Amino acid sequence: MVIVLKDSANKKQIEELMEWLTRFDVKSNLVEGVHSKIIGLIGDTTAVDIESVQAKEIVDTVKRVQEPYKNANRRFHPLDTVIDVRGRKLGGDRLQVIAGPCSVETEEQTIKTAIAVKEAGATMLRGGAFKPRTSPYAFQGLGKEGIDILKKARSETGLPIVTEIMDVSDIDLFDDVDIIQVGARNSQNFTLLKALGRLNKPILLKRGLSGTLQELLMSAEYIMSEGNSQVILCERGIRTYETATRNTLDLASVPLLKQKTHLPVTVDPSHATGIASLVEPCSLGAVAMGCHALEIEVHIDPEHAWSDGAQSLTPEKFKAVMNKIRAMAEFCGRPVDAD
Amino acid sequence: MVIVLKDSANKKQIEELMEWLTRFDVKSNLVEGVHSKIIGLIGDTTAVDIESVQAKEIVDTVKRVQEPYKNANRRFHPLDTVIDVRGRKLGGDRLQVIAGPCSVETEEQTIKTAIAVKEAGATMLRGGAFKPRTSPYAFQGLGKEGIDILKKARSETGLPIVTEIMDVSDIDLFDDVDIIQVGARNSQNFTLLKALGRLNKPILLKRGLSGTLQELLMSAEYIMSEGNSQVILCERGIRTYETATRNTLDLASVPLLKQKTHLPVTVDPSHATGIASLVEPCSLGAVAMGCHALEIEVHIDPEHAWSDGAQSLTPEKFKAVMNKIRAMAEFCGRPVDAD
Amino acid sequence: MVIVLKDSANKKQIEELMEWLTRFDVKSNLVEGVHSKIIGLIGDTTAVDIESVQAKEIVDTVKRVQEPYKNANRRFHPLDTVIDVRGRKLGGDRLQVIAGPCSVETEEQTIKTAIAVKEAGATMLRGGAFKPRTSPYAFQGLGKEGIDILKKARSETGLPIVTEIMDVSDIDLFDDVDIIQVGARNSQNFTLLKALGRLNKPILLKRGLSGTLQELLMSAEYIMSEGNSQVILCERGIRTYETATRNTLDLASVPLLKQKTHLPVTVDPSHATGIASLVEPCSLGAVAMGCHALEIEVHIDPEHAWSDGAQSLTPEKFKAVMNKIRAMAEFCGRPVDAD
Amino acid sequence: MVIVLKDSANKKQIEELMEWLTRFDVKSNLVEGVHSKIIGLIGDTTAVDIESVQAKEIVDTVKRVQEPYKNANRRFHPLDTVIDVRGRKLGGDRLQVIAGPCSVETEEQTIKTAIAVKEAGATMLRGGAFKPRTSPYAFQGLGKEGIDILKKARSETGLPIVTEIMDVSDIDLFDDVDIIQVGARNSQNFTLLKALGRLNKPILLKRGLSGTLQELLMSAEYIMSEGNSQVILCERGIRTYETATRNTLDLASVPLLKQKTHLPVTVDPSHATGIASLVEPCSLGAVAMGCHALEIEVHIDPEHAWSDGAQSLTPEKFKAVMNKIRAMAEFCGRPVDAD
Repeated sequence: MVIVLKDSANKKQIEELMEWLTRFDVKSNLVEGVHSKIIGLIGDTTAVDIESVQAKEIVDTVKRVQEPYKNANRRFHPLDTVIDVRGRKLGGDRLQVIAGPCSVETEEQTIKTAIAVKEAGATMLRGGAFKPRTSPYAFQGLGKEGIDILKKARSETGLPIVTEIMDVSDIDLFDDVDIIQVGARNSQNFTLLKALGRLNKPILLKRGLSGTLQELLMSAEYIMSEGNSQVILCERGIRTYETATRNTLDLASVPLLKQKTHLPVTVDPSHATGIASLVEPCSLGAVAMGCHALEIEVHIDPEHAWSDGAQSLTPEKFKAVMNKIRAMAEFCGRPVDAD
Repeated sequence: MVIVLKDSANKKQIEELMEWLTRFDVKSNLVEGVHSKIIGLIGDTTAVDIESVQAKEIVDTVKRVQEPYKNANRRFHPLDTVIDVRGRKLGGDRLQVIAGPCSVETEEQTIKTAIAVKEAGATMLRGGAFKPRTSPYAFQGLGKEGIDILKKARSETGLPIVTEIMDVSDIDLFDDVDIIQVGARNSQNFTLLKALGRLNKPILLKRGLSGTLQELLMSAEYIMSEGNSQVILCERGIRTYETATRNTLDLASVPLLKQKTHLPVTVDPSHATGIASLVEPCSLGAVAMGCHALEIEVHIDPEHAWSDGAQSLTPEKFKAVMNKIRAMAEFCGRPVDAD
Repeated sequence: MVIVLKDSANKKQIEELMEWLTRFDVKSNLVEGVHSKIIGLIGDTTAVDIESVQAKEIVDTVKRVQEPYKNANRRFHPLDTVIDVRGRKLGGDRLQVIAGPCSVETEEQTIKTAIAVKEAGATMLRGGAFKPRTSPYAFQGLGKEGIDILKKARSETGLPIVTEIMDVSDIDLFDDVDIIQVGARNSQNFTLLKALGRLNKPILLKRGLSGTLQELLMSAEYIMSEGNSQVILCERGIRTYETATRNTLDLASVPLLKQKTHLPVTVDPSHATGIASLVEPCSLGAVAMGCHALEIEVHIDPEHAWSDGAQSLTPEKFKAVMNKIRAMAEFCGRPVDAD
Repeated sequence: MVIVLKDSANKKQIEELMEWLTRFDVKSNLVEGVHSKIIGLIGDTTAVDIESVQAKEIVDTVKRVQEPYKNANRRFHPLDTVIDVRGRKLGGDRLQVIAGPCSVETEEQTIKTAIAVKEAGATMLRGGAFKPRTSPYAFQGLGKEGIDILKKARSETGLPIVTEIMDVSDIDLFDDVDIIQVGARNSQNFTLLKALGRLNKPILLKRGLSGTLQELLMSAEYIMSEGNSQVILCERGIRTYETATRNTLDLASVPLLKQKTHLPVTVDPSHATGIASLVEPCSLGAVAMGCHALEIEVHIDPEHAWSDGAQSLTPEKFKAVMNKIRAMAEFCGRPVDAD
């Protein structure tokens, strides 16, 4: 951590500040020049509260040098984390493809879709039971009933199920879910993250609507600091000024996250772009850039989907996309997982 | 709502779509030309799910004409909502100034600050008991103890108290709080919003980190659609590419929100800018632009604040700022509230 | 400037780097710790090329401590720059109001508007002769003829004229213009900025569509480094994800720029919001926050304006807005300039 | 184009508006309902000035349905444009790799780099002679001398040369350049675009710092509307709130642009990310997503580069990256061009 002092800082003030800094168990070094004075903090600065330093009268700016996350940091955990999901490995040398409807609408729709995506080669089933919707007047999901339907679909197909939690109070309903998803709007719901950190279950954590990569890693750190290290990161597009796509898919985040952390990285091209015809190219790009999993929306009848139909693939289109993904994944050395 | 059809749409498909649209109890009008075909939907389109329309094969784009919110819409509620907070009116012809520390740290700190801001002319007390912090290693707030301290400060000063809720499960702790604040990171925590909608208590709703004004109004609609119409909107800066200030304070949102909604609008210049020296000019600007309230961070000892010290004013500085605010508010015809 | 070294940096490499740094005539100080090594550069680092430092193998990150601008820097020029424009002072204790049409369309329209804004109290006349338009099929301005019309309007009213240059090759046409405006899209047209820097004439420099404040100051530095110190900065809204207004007006930039630079700061609420009804509140806010000038679009017949009609005020509305601006400016201690 | 009228619009006003609209040679259809009235414009609306419509008193909002570009529109030109550059085809079934230094610094550096990138498999040479730099104190490029050096490098290697123009006044210096590049900061320098439109030479047009895809296509339209249809689009990252990479590479723009236009699409991963280690994965992703060309920075000695060293590859690294690109391009069915 580097602390730049104001020109006006006098010797006594600087000594007081350096004395105060000793509480954080770090070593301070003063660099003095004609026009500026800098203190370099050396040691583990994770616990140094940057804001309380910034608030000091004589401090001009404070800049963090080390990353403020530990458990999620590749520097301290060089080996990739591989998460076991009912025998399937996420984070290792196989690509997982998580497919299914945006919302669980009916048992028939969900099971038909599950069978179709399985046949096409998907390795996990996604589906929303609790749906965060901008409007209170839009369909909010089937809730518990939706989770029960997903379990039936799992029985039918053997596909592990991934579904989103919206509130801590629902946590018991997710006991038998294979991966609990945290949506973009809850990416900094710290109460929820801490509660999930006390489970022994994989958590798929989506990047916030306008979350930085560091914030995403700090949210992972919230879960991990409570004891649960099974965190899967998900790039799902960020909010920018561009309106041609729903969000801007930040694919460079895939290799960058893989440099910074040992956690698996997945990509959701459906939500990122909001346009069905872009799912194929974005999936291929994500695989080429090294992602460990893809999350793709498929609906047996997108025209009658209760949410997000415009970005959903039909089973037929998904099959065609899967064929391309399979070839690309094979080419890239991380083939799609198979039974 | 305007539905632009693809060039390829044939007569039969268009008829089917128009038949399907009848379910929403709206009237469809087809406009046909050589190169494009448009359907205009007339009537109350609030309940029309734009995404399910977008998903139709023959639909190119869908554009909403009417606002998708009703309870929060000035069109249907032309008169300003005035919210009574222990006798103080928020949304009317008096400016409320909500001041206090970012975090409740100790009883002494809080009560001293409360007394100081009261003396300077603040009309309500703010203070965080539950603190959303990016890092799990940072101070997370005193929780219930913090709320108890705020109540003591209220007893000492008579100032109504405003404090932030982070999770539905804590809702009972806020029974005796005067205004419950929803922070930027929870601006689209729909479970929380619905629960707050079932209370009979003012809710101060902050705009999301990258929330649009329409999303802010839809979040207000979530609360109002459950029965609680005491919603106060708060502009607190949005996330942009500019790093010179913590966020970009969108002051034009004040008059724009006042055109679109009857709800009171407040501004938080402390969080918006993150720079103490900008609190005064931004407060004056906000008042000049018509806000109903200001939320300002004050700490008896910013250098030793446990959070956000860099943007906090000392009581002395706050007093000076209040004097300017008082004059500006008087000049603008909405004087600071007084006993 | 602070240089954070990679863990892997060895003694020899560090010595080489420090030797290499001597070329910039700055002093290097090494701060060594167990986990990190930092070099602090002390002295005038304006000329140190941050990118060439960043490219060094052993360098992890480089952070600039001092601002990279000198001529525009208040630190070195504490007194406000006051620019004389035909006897009117911009940057001093009088507010200038620059009003007029977006585009010069006809002599009649321009002169009528000029007379109307003068009567309402405007102190300078704006009007576009060269118009940067997104579409090649839109009206591109009258060019030289437009400038001639503006001069006639100046003769009629005595108002100094402000008009935009789009290319270096047109520079001679602006000989007799009082203030040359550089539009947002040319904010980093460095060839143009340098050419303007060789004139002895006030330059009104608009912030880029997504320009940072530092980039704005660096663009001012381009002009000033060539010898022309008569630069006026203009906040005109930045591009963000929010679509409710055309741009997001960053009013906090006004007091922040005034801290960082001695140059006058002006605000253009018309382009910033794109909505006529927001011009009044945004103007009042800008004055309350300390701007030295306002730039407002007025058109005698906005419905038939050839560009930007939606944000233009009629002379009647402008008169009403001016009355409010006059009162606010008086109240804030920087009254509107008068003959 | 769809025009939504205000509630208050009366019959006479609507008739006047529809009469006024006839000037644009389009057909108007009125759709009337209880709560809203809409006019649909049918025909070629490219020339309808959306702003002048928006300015009408009775108009609430105007929405464009058709794209405002024609020459660049795939709808009217379904076949891919293939541009011949000294016998190499850009836009067809071969991938072009444009590599070279950010800046031309010396003859030796440039020629050595040119030979190295040629040996590694690059098909064109890039290098900056005119450099847009944020700071007036940074190296601004060698200008004419730089172009001469590039021509020598072309003689040595046979590689076509790509270099950036910054101002119309320099246009003659680019006579013998193979592709003229327009940088991000000049993406809406309309005077420059029009001048380039009068040449018979390929133009590589970069997306603006915060340019929308539609603006990029409109800038292409500026060039094309003057007669030059040899335009190559370049995605080079956009400005967002994320600071982990220099810009946010919007790779979904590649397939989206290819849907909307027939022009070739290229990607610059070096400038987009600013991080050398991300160039390889981003290049592979771009190829997998269908780009026609890549632009990559290579420097024989990045540590001593005069600009952008941090994102430049050494010839050795470039060779390794090229091997991966070659394999990926082959796999994707658009192999790297070869002699």
